Amino acid sequence: MARRSVEEHAAAVRALLEPLLSRPAEAVPLAEALGRCTAEEVLSPVDLPLFRNSQMDGFAVRASDARSAGAQSPVTLPLGEVIPAGPGVPAPLQPGTAVRIMTGALVPHGADAIVRVEDTTSSGGRVTLLHSPAPGEHVREAGSDVPAGGRLLAAGTLLAPRHLAALAAAGLGAVTVRSRVRVAVLTTGSELIDAGARPEPGQIFDANSIALRAACEEAGAEVVLTGRTADDPEEFRSLLGRACRSAELVLTSGGISQGDYEVVRQVLEPAGAWVGEVAMQPGGPQATAQLDGVPVLCFPGNPVSTQVSFAVFLRPLLRGAAGLPDAGPGSAVLADGFCSPAGKRQYRRGRMDENGAVHLIAGPGSHLVAALASSDVLVVAERDRTEFAAGETVPVIAL
Amino acid sequence: MARRSVEEHAAAVRALLEPLLSRPAEAVPLAEALGRCTAEEVLSPVDLPLFRNSQMDGFAVRASDARSAGAQSPVTLPLGEVIPAGPGVPAPLQPGTAVRIMTGALVPHGADAIVRVEDTTSSGGRVTLLHSPAPGEHVREAGSDVPAGGRLLAAGTLLAPRHLAALAAAGLGAVTVRSRVRVAVLTTGSELIDAGARPEPGQIFDANSIALRAACEEAGAEVVLTGRTADDPEEFRSLLGRACRSAELVLTSGGISQGDYEVVRQVLEPAGAWVGEVAMQPGGPQATAQLDGVPVLCFPGNPVSTQVSFAVFLRPLLRGAAGLPDAGPGSAVLADGFCSPAGKRQYRRGRMDENGAVHLIAGPGSHLVAALASSDVLVVAERDRTEFAAGETVPVIAL
Repeated sequence: MARRSVEEHAAAVRALLEPLLSRPAEAVPLAEALGRCTAEEVLSPVDLPLFRNSQMDGFAVRASDARSAGAQSPVTLPLGEVIPAGPGVPAPLQPGTAVRIMTGALVPHGADAIVRVEDTTSSGGRVTLLHSPAPGEHVREAGSDVPAGGRLLAAGTLLAPRHLAALAAAGLGAVTVRSRVRVAVLTTGSELIDAGARPEPGQIFDANSIALRAACEEAGAEVVLTGRTADDPEEFRSLLGRACRSAELVLTSGGISQGDYEVVRQVLEPAGAWVGEVAMQPGGPQATAQLDGVPVLCFPGNPVSTQVSFAVFLRPLLRGAAGLPDAGPGSAVLADGFCSPAGKRQYRRGRMDENGAVHLIAGPGSHLVAALASSDVLVVAERDRTEFAAGETVPVIAL
Repeated sequence: MARRSVEEHAAAVRALLEPLLSRPAEAVPLAEALGRCTAEEVLSPVDLPLFRNSQMDGFAVRASDARSAGAQSPVTLPLGEVIPAGPGVPAPLQPGTAVRIMTGALVPHGADAIVRVEDTTSSGGRVTLLHSPAPGEHVREAGSDVPAGGRLLAAGTLLAPRHLAALAAAGLGAVTVRSRVRVAVLTTGSELIDAGARPEPGQIFDANSIALRAACEEAGAEVVLTGRTADDPEEFRSLLGRACRSAELVLTSGGISQGDYEVVRQVLEPAGAWVGEVAMQPGGPQATAQLDGVPVLCFPGNPVSTQVSFAVFLRPLLRGAAGLPDAGPGSAVLADGFCSPAGKRQYRRGRMDENGAVHLIAGPGSHLVAALASSDVLVVAERDRTEFAAGETVPVIAL
């Protein structure tokens, strides 16, 4: 049987998926762009602000008119027509007059300063300015946030609400983002039934369909097909064919170990797949293939093995493709000691406490799916060691 | 004009929204449950594993049969029929025999240990065991992960793929989660047009519809209605009525400052709204109201003011309601000094560098929406101070 270290298999998976990792760009409407990653730099097609406008509710004036009487006695100016915020070009300001202006409204030609309403008194069609503004005061110049052609967003920006605000403010209704990796999720096993159905003796509920789908989506991919087959090579072959036609990456669970009914192995090995044992626990049986040019990544079927395989081999690649940050392994102090088999990298489940120490949750068994649910990290036991003591620092992978 | 400190207004907003924060529960299918928060503890309706099953591909035996010949000479046993994983109850194991069994398959009555296929040789309907198993070896007992009635998930669990795996493995097709806060997002302003449209002089693009919607969704709420009106009280009143009938919380932007065309103020003030000035910059004009029992939270219309108001007043409440973690303010060392007006808490936009120092991005102006997009924190300048020096530590709010 073919054997690989975790590093060797990770490198093989990366090589298999390499063509998928540089994503083609696609334009999406802003309403669908939250959480996506910009594929290119975005330049502003317009000046922001679009036009010279008032920063305040107040009065637009010529600064020189407001200063002409000297600092001691307030200036009083006759009023022109009010300028609301909204469409239309206001009439030019007549020298020696003021006009009421609202926040955001276009500053009329001839005016070069705004006096805040709080700094004025007005009556009988005249306004008295209690403050002499400097030229440009409370005026927002067109392009003073970003000029037309200036950079609005860098390539690789993960779009948050504030980025959508800037895109919309610049009049952009769509944005060019990296496309999502289109994944098909196939689960195999004659024993599997849907959650919610009633099991016969020997049947179990299919946990991988729902969990792998969610894991792919959380990592920024799009699941375009999920399917399940019994341990029947023809049925699996047919589903695999459909998956390869609709997805860029096919993910399978189950059917690759040393049993007599290993449907994925039976179908893919003759097609040139690598099917073997990776020196890890859980998750030993692993396989990779390429079918009609589509990469096929095969995980073992036990839900814990599947989730660990996803976290170790696929999650970093999918997150990278989507532009999502992936912290990679951290480290933590062991609250409990444990033993690990020689020659295998063991991934134990653990839970961090508030002091940064990690407590092991249940044993190493790959069937402990409830224990996995109450864990928040994988504790990594290096393959060349068998004893780990409380108090030592070990690598952990956040779940 | 009514005035409040940031703390006073935050407390008023919390009081207004209090009835929304304890969410009613709703059952959702697992496929829609990623990222939702469990409303109650989830008990497993079944034993996990569901039945006593094999941890390995190998042979099911009676441990006493495998040991009977002593440690020196391997035992050879006649073989019964293969047990695949899958439905059906296998025949009981005949004493003195072994049966081939696959990982996950139901262990036949009478067998109490599994010998791995690697530890055997077989030929001619007989298997030779190269290892003498202890009773229970490689057997997963029913309920050894979690027994029926045991806790699968705690209340308040934010559902990740591994939680969905556990729910599905226990046969649960749906999960009871906190319902999402249903929000209506209304923007106001005669000057506003859709991104993608062609502006007349004086018109600007509506950035708040898209950004507030995204901000609510990111904070775990559901936006059930977005709408925009010109500065026309009748039009706004009608939209507001629709919003109050479909949403639990109405969010508005614009129309609450001291100008002459403040539609939100004109409609809500006679209905008993609090409309006033909060001692902050940007985001001074704020309002709260209750209409037909529905809380209405009103932000100023400038996109930067709107985003800052959301981050300061609403985001922590919505995230808390959704069960999402909200870090709250952190702190950072200022890379640049700056001045801030007396009597107002100023929220400057900043960007963290890799050393944890924060650099101010552009000036304090509330129109700087592109500058906000290139920021990743708000730098909080306390109201009672006007000068902040490079090197000092200040509170920051992550965006």
